[in-house]
Amino acid sequence: MEYEKLLASRTETMKANAIREILKVVAEPGVVSLAGGIPSPESFPMEIINEIFQKVLEKYSSSAFQYDLTEGFIPLREQLSKLLEKRGVKSSFESINVASGSQGVLDGVAKLLISKGDKIALEAPTYLGALSAFNPYEPEYIRMDMDDKGLVPQSLEQALISHNIKFIYLVPTFQNPTGRTLTLERRQEIARIIIKHDALLVEDDPYSALRYKGNDILPLKTFAPDNVIYVSTLSKIFAPGLRIGFYVAPDFLNRWLVLAKQGVDLHTSTFNQALAAEYLKGGYLEKHLLKIKALYKPRQEAMMESIKKYFPLDFTCSKSDGGMFLWVQGPKNFDMTDLYNKSVGNGVAFVPGQFFFTDKDEGMNTMRLNYTMADEATIKTAVKKLAQCI
Amino acid sequence: MEYEKLLASRTETMKANAIREILKVVAEPGVVSLAGGIPSPESFPMEIINEIFQKVLEKYSSSAFQYDLTEGFIPLREQLSKLLEKRGVKSSFESINVASGSQGVLDGVAKLLISKGDKIALEAPTYLGALSAFNPYEPEYIRMDMDDKGLVPQSLEQALISHNIKFIYLVPTFQNPTGRTLTLERRQEIARIIIKHDALLVEDDPYSALRYKGNDILPLKTFAPDNVIYVSTLSKIFAPGLRIGFYVAPDFLNRWLVLAKQGVDLHTSTFNQALAAEYLKGGYLEKHLLKIKALYKPRQEAMMESIKKYFPLDFTCSKSDGGMFLWVQGPKNFDMTDLYNKSVGNGVAFVPGQFFFTDKDEGMNTMRLNYTMADEATIKTAVKKLAQCI
Repeated sequence: MEYEKLLASRTETMKANAIREILKVVAEPGVVSLAGGIPSPESFPMEIINEIFQKVLEKYSSSAFQYDLTEGFIPLREQLSKLLEKRGVKSSFESINVASGSQGVLDGVAKLLISKGDKIALEAPTYLGALSAFNPYEPEYIRMDMDDKGLVPQSLEQALISHNIKFIYLVPTFQNPTGRTLTLERRQEIARIIIKHDALLVEDDPYSALRYKGNDILPLKTFAPDNVIYVSTLSKIFAPGLRIGFYVAPDFLNRWLVLAKQGVDLHTSTFNQALAAEYLKGGYLEKHLLKIKALYKPRQEAMMESIKKYFPLDFTCSKSDGGMFLWVQGPKNFDMTDLYNKSVGNGVAFVPGQFFFTDKDEGMNTMRLNYTMADEATIKTAVKKLAQCI
Repeated sequence: MEYEKLLASRTETMKANAIREILKVVAEPGVVSLAGGIPSPESFPMEIINEIFQKVLEKYSSSAFQYDLTEGFIPLREQLSKLLEKRGVKSSFESINVASGSQGVLDGVAKLLISKGDKIALEAPTYLGALSAFNPYEPEYIRMDMDDKGLVPQSLEQALISHNIKFIYLVPTFQNPTGRTLTLERRQEIARIIIKHDALLVEDDPYSALRYKGNDILPLKTFAPDNVIYVSTLSKIFAPGLRIGFYVAPDFLNRWLVLAKQGVDLHTSTFNQALAAEYLKGGYLEKHLLKIKALYKPRQEAMMESIKKYFPLDFTCSKSDGGMFLWVQGPKNFDMTDLYNKSVGNGVAFVPGQFFFTDKDEGMNTMRLNYTMADEATIKTAVKKLAQCI
């Protein structure tokens, strides 16, 4: 059969997600990967997983294995409501829905909102997984500037004035790939702008719980509740292999997102949602989160210090108070893809930053470094090796 | 905000899935539901789930909680390869991919293949969940005739001659909603037709393991391997709440389906896949499947007998050797929606058959009855009550 002729036109916009390709490098022996975007397995609460499992069996028995509501497992949504209240987002459990990872939310939002050619405004650089969720629905991307304080509000307003923007996509806190955080002042300014322009914003927040210093900053959702879909996940604070994401959207969109999800996977694993419910309900998260932060904080510090120590002076590193990534910018004409090829040969992998830009030729001189997957000593050695390749 | 103006044009084709709406009736106290499409919780292997869980912890430890390949967890795919070999489908584990329920496969196939207006050929009636996967990609449906032996081959050939069909969707064994099975002779005939017309067929096979009498019939996939995407699930033989579906597609399509899934949910729960791997590997399935069949067989018999006993003579019931459903056809002008409203008031729910047809006005005199959720005595009483409403 000639299968190629069967492909839908939208497949022209679909290409392999570099994140997934990167996971293959992670698996190669002898390569220290600063390329991953994944949490350390040491961060998973393995010591209590059996306890949680037994609670699930006792409490929910066979109903944890049955089909369940597309909206999500109610005991989990009740717990998520409490979790979000601590982040400043007040929502009843009915308005919190669960999806199969935050990826599942992004796919749902894209399916619901994007007609071919619709415009989405994105930070440059932005999260690659969001692009692989959006691309099959054939949007156009409008890039917006960022700096060390996150998205530049004027750039957002310019985008909204110049284009008919379907929605804005942001990772405001400890952004992937840059590790940058949008300041409180800018959040308030951005909220003002989107309310003024009647614009919808998707606030993707996988990392805010992983704060190693400084104070929490309220989500954008709190400043413009009607204009923001707040998206988060348990992947970084429980376990990514369980694929549990969640979101709070305005009611109208909520109902539509549920409809979209019905067609995609009926609902997210009941059993995993039950595990998550007990993880949150039993107070395990609070204690365990301290361990996760104690694991990552010195890794971040080790990487920052090593970059300062070993990298040339004309390489600058993003300031970051949490998350999983640092972002390095080299001199204007430095080609990180060249460096990547040399460096992988030398046993150190990273992600060339250009993959995170929607405009070709942007970000050639940038790189994303992950510090969650290696210990401090390994990070120091790897950054030193990387510096030697430079 | 005026959210409505943000909706993509494809939302016009999206509507609430009656299956999910039906689940709400199931939950109402005092209503015996013959409407569900779900397995009995008694069919879940609760007595061995702890054993399987401990094996997963021992064998895979934290890797069962980590991100994994989009293609699926390798130990599970190895086991699925063995399972499929028993069904006559020979495939290496590399060519078997896992998805989030068979719903996830159907969404992927639709995303990959359907451009707006593309034609999909369907049995009339057909599985509703497939429509909710396909609808958002805006296909047109071409209906094909079926009878008690399943899809009528001439009707398929006519569809292929008259239309440019993107793919054919079938549930050949113990079909939802009718319980009917495509005969061996017709399978061979259909394979000949799709090969001749260079057509792609999606063979959805959730139920073939639930055979209560007669002999297994080889999947269509075995007769036209290059022309068939074979789709199945562990929902009916392990637990639906784990959301594990799988498929075997020609390599070219396989690679594209993986790409599509990357954007949708990255991958299916690693942990649930690990549970499934150990369920299959430990030989639990074989033993447990006997229990499931011993549970459902008398329920099917009780329903068939009660229909024969209580329903008027001009109501005919499908012949079925397995699965979860029976299909009843009333006299030509009988309105099952009227009956539904009366019957729910009288404490018995079912699904009016018209929901399973893509052409309006078809199937007004049909109904789908599920027999997995109630015991024999309850089924007898419910069918009797239903007959009284008629």
